[in-house]
Amino acid sequence: MSSLDGLSINLATVREQFTLAQAVDACVREGIRAVSPWRDQVAAAGLKEAAAMVRANGLRVTGLCRGGMFPAADAAGRAAAIDDNKRAIDEACALGADCLVLVVGGLAQGSKDIMAARQMVTDGVGAILDYARTNRMPLAIEPLHPMYAADRACINTMEQALDVCDELGDGLGVAVDVYHVWWDPKLAQQIARAGAAGRILAHHVCDWLVPTRDLLLDRGMMGDGVIDLRRIRRMIEVAGYNGPQEVEIFSAENWWKRPGDEVIATCIARYRSECVL
Amino acid sequence: MSSLDGLSINLATVREQFTLAQAVDACVREGIRAVSPWRDQVAAAGLKEAAAMVRANGLRVTGLCRGGMFPAADAAGRAAAIDDNKRAIDEACALGADCLVLVVGGLAQGSKDIMAARQMVTDGVGAILDYARTNRMPLAIEPLHPMYAADRACINTMEQALDVCDELGDGLGVAVDVYHVWWDPKLAQQIARAGAAGRILAHHVCDWLVPTRDLLLDRGMMGDGVIDLRRIRRMIEVAGYNGPQEVEIFSAENWWKRPGDEVIATCIARYRSECVL
Repeated sequence: MSSLDGLSINLATVREQFTLAQAVDACVREGIRAVSPWRDQVAAAGLKEAAAMVRANGLRVTGLCRGGMFPAADAAGRAAAIDDNKRAIDEACALGADCLVLVVGGLAQGSKDIMAARQMVTDGVGAILDYARTNRMPLAIEPLHPMYAADRACINTMEQALDVCDELGDGLGVAVDVYHVWWDPKLAQQIARAGAAGRILAHHVCDWLVPTRDLLLDRGMMGDGVIDLRRIRRMIEVAGYNGPQEVEIFSAENWWKRPGDEVIATCIARYRSECVL
Repeated sequence: MSSLDGLSINLATVREQFTLAQAVDACVREGIRAVSPWRDQVAAAGLKEAAAMVRANGLRVTGLCRGGMFPAADAAGRAAAIDDNKRAIDEACALGADCLVLVVGGLAQGSKDIMAARQMVTDGVGAILDYARTNRMPLAIEPLHPMYAADRACINTMEQALDVCDELGDGLGVAVDVYHVWWDPKLAQQIARAGAAGRILAHHVCDWLVPTRDLLLDRGMMGDGVIDLRRIRRMIEVAGYNGPQEVEIFSAENWWKRPGDEVIATCIARYRSECVL
């Protein structure tokens, strides 16, 4: 059996079954060495308690999900987002996370101006970047699938995310989630670009189901869909990133309804059969 | 009231309510001067009868939907697709259509190789292009939203479609459907590129709803969603395309359940309030 050092479990994958403590215990029991929690899970457990938990178990934290959500209809809303992102940086530091993942936000409330939203994102990331650098917490922009452009993230391709990184400079990179980018005709080119600039900060995996029954909550387990996971992993390793593959599955009607231990065991089995090179 | 010369109705918009003859009658009654039928609607009416119908009413046919679907698991399947596309060209000619719209197809059955699918598309379009040129029927590649990459079309951005056009040459262009491309950070750039090359062959409109409840059948009426329709129309006109805006709405739970006359009247009202520059 291959080692599990290359696997991380994003704890959203078992969010309906487990508290943070239960999820950590279940992962450790199965030999998993890395996790990625969400802020609401950490808040529910308590930040100090969560940090103690990962330290006591010697877990790597491949990312904290999530900062971002910068666009807002008014200046007060945008300022509040910046404050909240600084708190997220503090939390990521307390957890010793590899990076803070940014889901940047969609259109401002009531707006149809996606170019304005994109400018608000660039401005927002720019406004927290010095704070992140001072705290040595890398920020990982996660380009989200274009079907989320309106309501979750107006950064929708690797190319676009990397253009923002180039504009803003150091301390910034991308989280490459196969679900969001597998379709991109420029994927190979942009993964190479990201790797050359040292900007690949995370690699998330799951699968694209055919048919997909819900835009948000119908992601598939690796191997159940159509994404060529090994082809993308190969691109990422060739580009110089060898960090864990982090399984992140939102699945209201399937995986969130199964016992958490079964889900984690399946993640391990599928990581071995579908993801490892 | 502005003229309706700039409006076309894609007859999928009333496919659940009307036969082709009923749809044409309803459009003509409302003063509409252009339509775009689907092949199954034409087949049900009979090709000669359909052609006579549009001629008798002096209607412009802004496109025939649709050719494409080139990828297949074996050579026989790919050859069958090419034959079917040649028949579609014949039908488009019989109807005097402005173009044949190509929804190019997704992954071949059982395959995860999107690059192979894309090559099959380029090969397939290449294989029908001389026939289309001889018959003076422009082929309009329609880049589809990335959420359809697996099962409907593996050409997912304007840039990618235009790269195929550049590779294959004359007689080929794009159908710009706002639903598929509104999110694209390179939209303005690529519309300008398409216009400069004389490759904009059609402009389809509807709207992106928030939330979107179904990947295929929950498109919105213009004005009910978040797409900045006038901004995109402006780009298209500046790029040199002044043809009709064609309303194409797949809406199983809303517009397909309303009386067809109401739907067409609403298309006209929203065209005037949301689309005309």
